[in-house]
Amino acid sequence: MAQEIVRKRKAVEGATTLPGRYYSDEGIFRQEVDKLFQSMWLCAGRVDEIPNPGDYLVREIGCESIVVVRDEKEAIRAFYNNCRHRGTRLCLEESGSAKGSFQCQYHAWTYGLDGQLLGAPHMNEVPTFRKEDWPLKSVGCEVWEGHIFINLDENRAPLSEQLGDMPQRFARYRMGELRRARRIEYDVAANWKLIVENYSECYHCPLIHPDLNRVTHYLSGQNDVIADTYNGGYQIIGEQYCTLTVEGKKTRPYFRDIRKEDQNRVYYYEVYPNLLLSLHPDYMMTHTAWPKSAALTHVVCEWHFEPEVMARPEFDPSDAVGFWDMTNRQDWRACEISQLGVQSRGYTPGPFSNQEELIYNFDRFVLDRLEGPAVEARQVARAR
Amino acid sequence: MAQEIVRKRKAVEGATTLPGRYYSDEGIFRQEVDKLFQSMWLCAGRVDEIPNPGDYLVREIGCESIVVVRDEKEAIRAFYNNCRHRGTRLCLEESGSAKGSFQCQYHAWTYGLDGQLLGAPHMNEVPTFRKEDWPLKSVGCEVWEGHIFINLDENRAPLSEQLGDMPQRFARYRMGELRRARRIEYDVAANWKLIVENYSECYHCPLIHPDLNRVTHYLSGQNDVIADTYNGGYQIIGEQYCTLTVEGKKTRPYFRDIRKEDQNRVYYYEVYPNLLLSLHPDYMMTHTAWPKSAALTHVVCEWHFEPEVMARPEFDPSDAVGFWDMTNRQDWRACEISQLGVQSRGYTPGPFSNQEELIYNFDRFVLDRLEGPAVEARQVARAR
Amino acid sequence: MAQEIVRKRKAVEGATTLPGRYYSDEGIFRQEVDKLFQSMWLCAGRVDEIPNPGDYLVREIGCESIVVVRDEKEAIRAFYNNCRHRGTRLCLEESGSAKGSFQCQYHAWTYGLDGQLLGAPHMNEVPTFRKEDWPLKSVGCEVWEGHIFINLDENRAPLSEQLGDMPQRFARYRMGELRRARRIEYDVAANWKLIVENYSECYHCPLIHPDLNRVTHYLSGQNDVIADTYNGGYQIIGEQYCTLTVEGKKTRPYFRDIRKEDQNRVYYYEVYPNLLLSLHPDYMMTHTAWPKSAALTHVVCEWHFEPEVMARPEFDPSDAVGFWDMTNRQDWRACEISQLGVQSRGYTPGPFSNQEELIYNFDRFVLDRLEGPAVEARQVARAR
Repeated sequence: MAQEIVRKRKAVEGATTLPGRYYSDEGIFRQEVDKLFQSMWLCAGRVDEIPNPGDYLVREIGCESIVVVRDEKEAIRAFYNNCRHRGTRLCLEESGSAKGSFQCQYHAWTYGLDGQLLGAPHMNEVPTFRKEDWPLKSVGCEVWEGHIFINLDENRAPLSEQLGDMPQRFARYRMGELRRARRIEYDVAANWKLIVENYSECYHCPLIHPDLNRVTHYLSGQNDVIADTYNGGYQIIGEQYCTLTVEGKKTRPYFRDIRKEDQNRVYYYEVYPNLLLSLHPDYMMTHTAWPKSAALTHVVCEWHFEPEVMARPEFDPSDAVGFWDMTNRQDWRACEISQLGVQSRGYTPGPFSNQEELIYNFDRFVLDRLEGPAVEARQVARAR
Repeated sequence: MAQEIVRKRKAVEGATTLPGRYYSDEGIFRQEVDKLFQSMWLCAGRVDEIPNPGDYLVREIGCESIVVVRDEKEAIRAFYNNCRHRGTRLCLEESGSAKGSFQCQYHAWTYGLDGQLLGAPHMNEVPTFRKEDWPLKSVGCEVWEGHIFINLDENRAPLSEQLGDMPQRFARYRMGELRRARRIEYDVAANWKLIVENYSECYHCPLIHPDLNRVTHYLSGQNDVIADTYNGGYQIIGEQYCTLTVEGKKTRPYFRDIRKEDQNRVYYYEVYPNLLLSLHPDYMMTHTAWPKSAALTHVVCEWHFEPEVMARPEFDPSDAVGFWDMTNRQDWRACEISQLGVQSRGYTPGPFSNQEELIYNFDRFVLDRLEGPAVEARQVARAR
Repeated sequence: MAQEIVRKRKAVEGATTLPGRYYSDEGIFRQEVDKLFQSMWLCAGRVDEIPNPGDYLVREIGCESIVVVRDEKEAIRAFYNNCRHRGTRLCLEESGSAKGSFQCQYHAWTYGLDGQLLGAPHMNEVPTFRKEDWPLKSVGCEVWEGHIFINLDENRAPLSEQLGDMPQRFARYRMGELRRARRIEYDVAANWKLIVENYSECYHCPLIHPDLNRVTHYLSGQNDVIADTYNGGYQIIGEQYCTLTVEGKKTRPYFRDIRKEDQNRVYYYEVYPNLLLSLHPDYMMTHTAWPKSAALTHVVCEWHFEPEVMARPEFDPSDAVGFWDMTNRQDWRACEISQLGVQSRGYTPGPFSNQEELIYNFDRFVLDRLEGPAVEARQVARAR
């Protein structure tokens, strides 16, 4: 793996950022929705959001609304949020609890938690109609360590292919056992790729994150892996600090199975296209990105802890939440002024620093998906 | 006529709803504006809105603004709302009263109520200019029983062709004598066809209109007619009720010339593309639909009564208005959650129940207008 | 010059206004931004807005943001407002003062006031990187009598070609010495050409500007010049008035070098495409127009006076500002109702009066730029 990184680091020299149209053209945006967001596994949330049968959450991907539900047998399933009769949206809230079935609020067609059509008034009068022909349309749904992934592609490969060695890489964090303590949602007036790219480098940290840079110095870490569908690395927590919080103090025990060296590391991993996974010694932070248009992205940030820690009377996640909420907002502002710039013909691709190799590789992933590997090479060449 | 209905009822079996693009594609929407709304007779309102010479109302159809005015000879006329000089909008209010002429507020060109250019300052200095060459551009305008219809098509057929046997069908209601008591306007975040389709069936009534369904049971009526440019039927008022109001009580005399059987019927007729005509035993309700975009429709709902009834001191239309305002809002919500769904690829055409034959026929009318009868057959076949 | 005007006045007879698509089609609008606003010299403001080295102002032209700055050597320069690294917008305020350099707020790349890249952290680690390859991208910037002009076209001719004889024509007004006293900005829901066209004629003055028409009668003046890139004329201040203000009284000395006849004239000149220059006996008013979309224009109006007059304790520009702010708003309303009309197919090109010859010539300029002179002749012919 280290060898591969060295190779890519060479490749980045002389390479440049993406042309501006990739950040502002709505046609390219629709292709991205189609070829990335509606064709890959996306992180939709966590299983502990829907603990009981009938509990559901709703996610929007482009024009599509998807219901993720825990069925009677405790399995997690996902469906298009449309009645099969006249297409009416079935679940209108962002989350909720269905009492054994979903009923369309227009003509009362009713579906089981497994998606089967249970009742459709008067349709027995239509000779050609058979209930079994009209279940809710299912979409791919798999779970990795409590992270729910959905996939709209009918010809999808299993989630394991997209995750590669991620499961082995972080098994010791026992993410599947963690529970969410807080969620903050943001609307960021920037292309989704600017948000991923911002997460991919700490070259900007000295200027815009003085607090973060004090606790984890921007030159302290290294990149671990650059795979086709994910990448990541870590930074080192300074000697006088224990974790990334406002004070940097240890207010919670470290995750119990992590290695000694993990206790002063923060791992930052991107699982393409929409999950940013940040593993601290004592908590997990997740960002999921939901593109709304070429210049607007909805971001959901959540903080997750061990349930036994959360059960303590003194438990208070606000040191971690407050630190990252401040840092998030610093990042979104940078992304937004970046968006203002890249929409202009005054922007042409610029040179990468050596600290931006993950961006270079993420950009290659996007171009590969949109246009195929060969085209991408010409793109970058032309962009120079 | 009964024979025709039987035939169509057979056709509906196995047929499905329209593909989603017909509800969300702005290109198809513009075709509809062009081929339906700017090429057919539209109901623009009622003659009693403009009782005196110079009284006018303004209606918008797509980008077009049309002035309907009562001229000096009491005739109703309609014009494009544009000065012939530099195109400036002439009438800026939704309705009003012109004192003998319309004057453009930019350069003071002045037009008679018959549209003739009366004055144009300094244009006598232009040798080639002749006032008679620059009247307001007229559009088709005819009246049926107090309903004003306008038509932007220069090659239009007379209104009578579009109305077919509607005049004979409801002559006994003497609609021309009725006067408006109330208007409520709604902006509905749904395609205009969803609003017409919602009006076309009471399959949804048990679930979303418990009050309506108590007074007129959803299975009580029947369809009367399915013609090329209109359709309709009736429902039966339950034995313990007199009309459609909050209490269902008789607070007004019935229309004086209607038949005995009409006294416990409510007739629901659609005059394509924009008039929904609801004849109760004691009042007339009209909806006119004005498409704004693929996903937005302005609806004007009005309640009309006999003038002698309105003249009574105890006259109060609020029992009828309140009942239908509540019912309208229930319907608009259904249309809006339907719009949310049909915009998604999670929606594909679904099966009609036997109670939805009017929708099937309305959909055929739309497809015929947009693409011609032959193409429509293929469409529906492909949509399966 | 007089001869040319006579010729054009003949041409205008029988000619008509532009087809509606030129006011509402976003495709034509983008062509105008490209072929007029991003290819010609535009007035960006006045040198006295940025009196000291480091002072800058920012202007937006379509998607482009341009910084105009006074450099260390007191020269005025203009740059695209984009960092060369990842395109981030550099200056976020509409105006301000840079302390010797511009620093990108994302990764701290720093540029001199002359645009040279001074510092780029860690880029010395990239062997192929050379600072001199990555200066801010400059755009054309020239000054005429204190008016700053910018030009985004890389193949631009000098400003003098576009200005023609304007410099000689108004040298006696010593505009370069004037200072701004007030600015008012307006968003007008109308195409930018409607605003220029409105400025081009006083045919509308009797109806919508009773106060203006009292002081300068709409038939009092004449057109001076119709050149390829500018035009203008004057109106005569009535005998009992001294200048264009609320009272019409003389509250300031006249410009010291103007001719006797200038003392009762107001000159109105259009320097295509975006400067409207109004020279009164005692003050200069400028409008600059900044198109935002086919139907929206931002207008900046400023009032400029002699510095020695402004230095007097009793100096108060509000008589001039109040008069024109009122008049501006009357004009914007006319432009807005005009926009409502020309978007409609109810508008087709109408006949010009003899008082509208400047519009006819401005329209020709636009068509020439968009489509070439030959095509324009056909356009106008077809528009009849």
